[in-house]
Amino acid sequence: MKTETTIQGLTASLSPARSSRKIIGFVPTMGNLHEGHLNLVREARRLCDVVVVSIFVNPIQFGPNEDFENYPRTLEHDSHLLAEVGCDIVFAPSVEQMYGHKPRLTNISVSDITNDLCGLQRPGHFDGVAVVVTKLFNMVQPNFAFFGQKDYQQLAVIRQFVRDLNIPLEVIGVPITRATDGLALSSRNGYLTEEQRKTAPIIFQSLKEAEQQLKQAVNLAEVLENIKQTLTQAGFIVDYVEARTLDLDKIEVFNQDVVLFVAAKLGTTRLIDNLQVKYTA
Amino acid sequence: MKTETTIQGLTASLSPARSSRKIIGFVPTMGNLHEGHLNLVREARRLCDVVVVSIFVNPIQFGPNEDFENYPRTLEHDSHLLAEVGCDIVFAPSVEQMYGHKPRLTNISVSDITNDLCGLQRPGHFDGVAVVVTKLFNMVQPNFAFFGQKDYQQLAVIRQFVRDLNIPLEVIGVPITRATDGLALSSRNGYLTEEQRKTAPIIFQSLKEAEQQLKQAVNLAEVLENIKQTLTQAGFIVDYVEARTLDLDKIEVFNQDVVLFVAAKLGTTRLIDNLQVKYTA
Repeated sequence: MKTETTIQGLTASLSPARSSRKIIGFVPTMGNLHEGHLNLVREARRLCDVVVVSIFVNPIQFGPNEDFENYPRTLEHDSHLLAEVGCDIVFAPSVEQMYGHKPRLTNISVSDITNDLCGLQRPGHFDGVAVVVTKLFNMVQPNFAFFGQKDYQQLAVIRQFVRDLNIPLEVIGVPITRATDGLALSSRNGYLTEEQRKTAPIIFQSLKEAEQQLKQAVNLAEVLENIKQTLTQAGFIVDYVEARTLDLDKIEVFNQDVVLFVAAKLGTTRLIDNLQVKYTA
Repeated sequence: MKTETTIQGLTASLSPARSSRKIIGFVPTMGNLHEGHLNLVREARRLCDVVVVSIFVNPIQFGPNEDFENYPRTLEHDSHLLAEVGCDIVFAPSVEQMYGHKPRLTNISVSDITNDLCGLQRPGHFDGVAVVVTKLFNMVQPNFAFFGQKDYQQLAVIRQFVRDLNIPLEVIGVPITRATDGLALSSRNGYLTEEQRKTAPIIFQSLKEAEQQLKQAVNLAEVLENIKQTLTQAGFIVDYVEARTLDLDKIEVFNQDVVLFVAAKLGTTRLIDNLQVKYTA
C-alpha cells in the first residue's frame, strides 16, 4: 500500500492503473476509521482493480462552532487498518495541498434537498462537502465512488451533483454498519461517555419499533412522535425526527418506501441514524 | 467528421481516442461560427490529436430579457466550416440531452471576479457558464480546452473554477480575432445594421488610442474617460469602460500590465472588447 500526500504523487501512483484502464474505486473519508469505513473499502475491493482511500478532515464542511479542530486525526492507525482490508493507495493531503494558497472563489451548492434535516442545523455544510468531493473526484478520477448510507442526505446530495454535472463515475451507497447493540458506527461515537454509549443504541431501537408500528398501520405522524418521546425520555435532545421518500421528498402517509431520519444529541455529541422501511401494499 | 447529438454517442465516438490515450482538444461554442471560433479550432488542431467542438445554445446563461430565443442556430453551415478546419467530432446536443427531465438542483458560482464588468449587467450569467462548461468538460474529458480572449472575464472565470475544483485539463486562451477594420468578431455583430457596423470599429480604435495615451503617460482615469467620450460621441450607449490587472483586480495607476475593457450598445446590440496593454517601466 502506498501513501501519497500530494496531488502530484497521487497522479503518479495512479498513472499505471489509468494507462492500463484498470477499474478505480474511491472511498473518501475524514479518517478515524471504523468498521463502517472498512466495509466501504471491502466493497470497493470487491468491485474494483485499484482501491484509493482519501483521509482528509475538510475544514470547509465544518461550521464555526463545530469540531474541526478536535476531530480525531489517527493516520497511522488508519493506515494499518486500510492495509489489512486491501487498500492500494491512501491519499492524505494537507489543507494547503487541497486548497492551495490563493483564495478559493468557486462554490458548488445543491438546493432543495440540503434545506432541511442536517442542512438546517449546518448551513454551508453540504456546499463544503460538494466542493471537496468534486475536487477529490477530479484528482482520483475513479470509476466507482463509495459512500455510507448512514449519511443518507450526504449520499443524496452527492448523487444529485454527480448527475447534474455529468461527473463520469458511479456512486455506490453502502448499508449502515452497526455495533452488535445496533448503534450506527460513527467517528463521533468516540466522544460519548461510557454511560452515553449505553444510551445511544436507543436511537436504532426506536427506529426498529417505528418500523413495526408502521407495519401495524399506525399513523406516520404518530410513529414519528413516538420516536421523539422515546428519545427525549432517554435523555436525548432531539434535533429532528423525520420521514422522507427515498429521494428525500416530504411524505405524510406511509404509502410507499420511506426513510426515517433521526438526529439527536447526547450531551454535546450529535448522533444521526436512519432506517429504510419498505412499503408492501 | 462525426456529428453526435447524444452524450452516449459522444462517449462512444471518443472511446477509441481515450483507449489509445490520444490528446483530446475541446472547443465549446454556441454555434453561429465565425473566424474567431475557427481560430480556436485551428489552435486545438495544432496541439491535439482529436478535436471536439460543441455547439449548444445554453439557456441557463441567458437572462430573461436576453436573446436566447433569437440566438442564431446555424448548425448546417457551422458543420461545413468545422469540417474544413479539421474538427473530428461535432457535439450538438438538445437542451433535453444536456439538462435531462429531472430538475437540476446543482449550481456552481464563482465569487469576486463575477461581481462586476459583464457580471453586473447579467446576474447569474457566469453561474450558467460555469455549470454548462463543467458538464461539457465531464462529457468530453479533454486534455486541453480552448476559449477566446474576447470574453476575457469568462476565460478568467473558467480558469478560476478549473483551478478551484482541480478539473484535470489545461485551459488555453486564444487572442481575439478581428475584422480588417479592427472590430472583434462576435456572433452578435450579425445583429448590427449596415450603418451600425460602420460605427462599431470605433470601439477598437478607442482602445488603441488609449494604449498610445498610456504609453505617453496620460493618467489612467483620464484615458478611460476619453474612451467613454469617444464612444458616446459616436452614438454608443456605454455600459462600462474599465481597467483591470490580468487577474481582474482593480487598478488605479498604470504601473503593471493592464487590460482595458469596453462594453457598449449600438441600438439594442451589446458589443464587448478588450485590449491588453503591456507595462514597461
